Amino acid sequence: MNNASQIMHDMDHFFKPNGVAVIGATDNAKRGGFHLLRNVLGGYTGKVYPVNPKYAEIMGVPCYPDVASIPDDFDLAIYFIPAASLPETIRECAKKKVRAIIIESAGFSETGEEGRKLQQRSVELARSLGIRLWGPNCMGLLDAHSRNVFSFMYNDRWKTLLAPGNVSLIVQSGMLSAGFLMTMMERGGMGMSKIASIGNKCDVNETELLEYFINDEKTEVIGCYLESIVDGRRFMDLARKTSKPIVVLKSGRSPQGARAAMSHTASLSGSSKIYDGAFRQAGIIQVFDLNELMDFIRGFSHFESCPDKGGTAVVTFSGGAGIVTADLLSDRGLQLADLAPETLREIKKVFPEWMEPAHPLDLWPAVEKNGLSTVYNHTVEAAMKDPAVDTIIVESIAAINRGPEFLAEIGRMKKRYGKPVLLWLIHNGQQDVFNHYRKIAEEAGVPEFTEISRIVAIIAGVKRHYRKKRSLGVLP
Amino acid sequence: MNNASQIMHDMDHFFKPNGVAVIGATDNAKRGGFHLLRNVLGGYTGKVYPVNPKYAEIMGVPCYPDVASIPDDFDLAIYFIPAASLPETIRECAKKKVRAIIIESAGFSETGEEGRKLQQRSVELARSLGIRLWGPNCMGLLDAHSRNVFSFMYNDRWKTLLAPGNVSLIVQSGMLSAGFLMTMMERGGMGMSKIASIGNKCDVNETELLEYFINDEKTEVIGCYLESIVDGRRFMDLARKTSKPIVVLKSGRSPQGARAAMSHTASLSGSSKIYDGAFRQAGIIQVFDLNELMDFIRGFSHFESCPDKGGTAVVTFSGGAGIVTADLLSDRGLQLADLAPETLREIKKVFPEWMEPAHPLDLWPAVEKNGLSTVYNHTVEAAMKDPAVDTIIVESIAAINRGPEFLAEIGRMKKRYGKPVLLWLIHNGQQDVFNHYRKIAEEAGVPEFTEISRIVAIIAGVKRHYRKKRSLGVLP
Repeated sequence: MNNASQIMHDMDHFFKPNGVAVIGATDNAKRGGFHLLRNVLGGYTGKVYPVNPKYAEIMGVPCYPDVASIPDDFDLAIYFIPAASLPETIRECAKKKVRAIIIESAGFSETGEEGRKLQQRSVELARSLGIRLWGPNCMGLLDAHSRNVFSFMYNDRWKTLLAPGNVSLIVQSGMLSAGFLMTMMERGGMGMSKIASIGNKCDVNETELLEYFINDEKTEVIGCYLESIVDGRRFMDLARKTSKPIVVLKSGRSPQGARAAMSHTASLSGSSKIYDGAFRQAGIIQVFDLNELMDFIRGFSHFESCPDKGGTAVVTFSGGAGIVTADLLSDRGLQLADLAPETLREIKKVFPEWMEPAHPLDLWPAVEKNGLSTVYNHTVEAAMKDPAVDTIIVESIAAINRGPEFLAEIGRMKKRYGKPVLLWLIHNGQQDVFNHYRKIAEEAGVPEFTEISRIVAIIAGVKRHYRKKRSLGVLP
Repeated sequence: MNNASQIMHDMDHFFKPNGVAVIGATDNAKRGGFHLLRNVLGGYTGKVYPVNPKYAEIMGVPCYPDVASIPDDFDLAIYFIPAASLPETIRECAKKKVRAIIIESAGFSETGEEGRKLQQRSVELARSLGIRLWGPNCMGLLDAHSRNVFSFMYNDRWKTLLAPGNVSLIVQSGMLSAGFLMTMMERGGMGMSKIASIGNKCDVNETELLEYFINDEKTEVIGCYLESIVDGRRFMDLARKTSKPIVVLKSGRSPQGARAAMSHTASLSGSSKIYDGAFRQAGIIQVFDLNELMDFIRGFSHFESCPDKGGTAVVTFSGGAGIVTADLLSDRGLQLADLAPETLREIKKVFPEWMEPAHPLDLWPAVEKNGLSTVYNHTVEAAMKDPAVDTIIVESIAAINRGPEFLAEIGRMKKRYGKPVLLWLIHNGQQDVFNHYRKIAEEAGVPEFTEISRIVAIIAGVKRHYRKKRSLGVLP
């Protein structure tokens, strides 16, 4: 087996195991071991073996006092008991032909010298027995397609909120992956493929997972929160060779951040300047804040083609917002599309007599005359047909007395004409109305963002991505 | 009367009029004239005169066929009928000793040459008759303290949502002020003083309003969205001499934005470079996007003192988020506070045995051991007591099973120790729980923000503001 197929083989034992033991399962709902077992049983369709000497059965499933008592061989163990028992557990697992262990407990190298030694000893032992270790100090993994959720997340709202889609994540930092993920799932507007929380990454690391996700046909966009990169050269090399966008938030960039990273996951952050340059050369999209990371991967997940053949059309309810948008586009070197005279003539049909369409397209007077749906749909379709337009920013009010159906129609146009649309939506004083508008839009493939500057940054990032990948010869 | 007291006198006729006529009032709820009258009657306590030849009475108030038929003299007319009748109305108003007219209709200089001439003629006429004009093409004004709402905003949720406070706004662009304002009100977390939507600003302009707000004792923070500045020299001069923070989003900075501003409110935007320099010299805080403007004025409204005597303490549920925060602080030249050994010893009391407190303060293992409220409150109070700390960033999860009371306690500490706290709050999968946490925090004076980078930018902006005002000799 070559290196790449070895990695695929190893990672499959984590993502698609044949049999899973949950070591530290409990029926006490206040403990992580309860949620871990509930989550595994809630999606995974193979055999599950809870392990805890206190119970004969949990959640209707037979429970075993220890790994040795499990009657079958199995692929994956999830470890959620105190750190000290790990080496012994690895030895027991080896006897059951276990190939992979996810260690979700803390208490290893992040706690100091003693924990570091325990972690190191465990890695050496596992390696000698042909077992791969994931974690420790992490939240495990989720797969939105297979519904394998091997994580102690404290609620099971993933059952309804975790929509299958094209985004995969690699997240170092346990609490962050939990909160981050719940925030993303509750926010909606994006479908997920695989999510990996890797914590101290004593063995399985971000570079292997990157390779796995690059080769995963269900993954089209990859997002990473990383405090260090273990095999930096290979990570950059993989990134350079793929056409899939990779958005990375690398923390510990500053001396004060790097010190914190050391005490958090015992990570050596490395020089910020070297990373900046390497990311740029590899065509990696670098971001600097958590919400920015979420917005970027959500934005990228809705771009199905290259928007690099013209400028952006701006369609707005507010002349003021339109001007701000034009400025922000200009700040990023992006053009307001140079609309053809026939496009403006077409749009004029829904405008009031006294008003000539100008770009950005301020639609409010036309809306007052002809209604929201008619005017927005007519204008957006005219813009879609214009060869000078490659992307469209739609700015609208979530108006109580009008209704969001026009946004679903704009989503259909997006697909028909193959031109991405990004939405800036503001309130009319009612959160529930706003949420309803947003849901209609995002189900139609039109992502909504809180900041116009973020929309513009995403368009610039997508265009840069395609240009870079073409210059690297990865895309035609 | 000197220039300043003349302005106060003139503006008082708009904000505190003795008698208001609503020209274009109607009982048809689909028309702006309905909402305008309803809003005026909903708050203003003086005499109100609806004007419309079609009605003898609207909403229980006698209605007059024209201004001439109004039996009393009065100060303010609000004009909401087609543009062409303005000159005649001005002449009628003069006979009733009207001192101020708010023109909320569109159809003036923003529509082309004919409209421009009509507007010019009206201004000259009003000036000759001692009447000040506000607008046209605007949303009028709101005063959260007096409850005078002279605007055609399409709903009256301002009655419950418009909280009195210390922020005043000057907004050019009608639809923007409406949407902007509703979004801000629905969002909450900030109290308002006066809001002025000035549209084409044919007579009353941003510079007069700036002077009025600087002299208004209920205003402590001033936010502006402007497409041009009519009397730039005086605007900058006023800004330089006040200690009140002035946050400005000036649009039309780019050539493509400037062209749009010309067609929107017939504004000549002026050179972006000249503005940037002038803003900096005058100590004006410049922002570039609409949500950024809202966040900045909300942030500034919660700073009661100068946070420039140390560094920022970061208290978090997530080691990862803490590191990102440390990096973002560093990007802006801000320090993580150098916590005293006794502060760390105090915090250690709630930490688990194995974990030494390090800064940023990752509290999750301590929370698992001692509970959210105990650990957050103990840690934040220890940080408040440390002289090296001047501001605190609190990062928390809105956890269903815990409760937000600790945030109210942190708000009380903020007041007791005089150190501002800014909150980054993430979901636990439920929007309503999140909203509840946010409400508790913001009622206690702890503002919440979506982006960590925004929190850091606001702290940097506030520190820069105080330094600049000291260097200008405006603050001691």
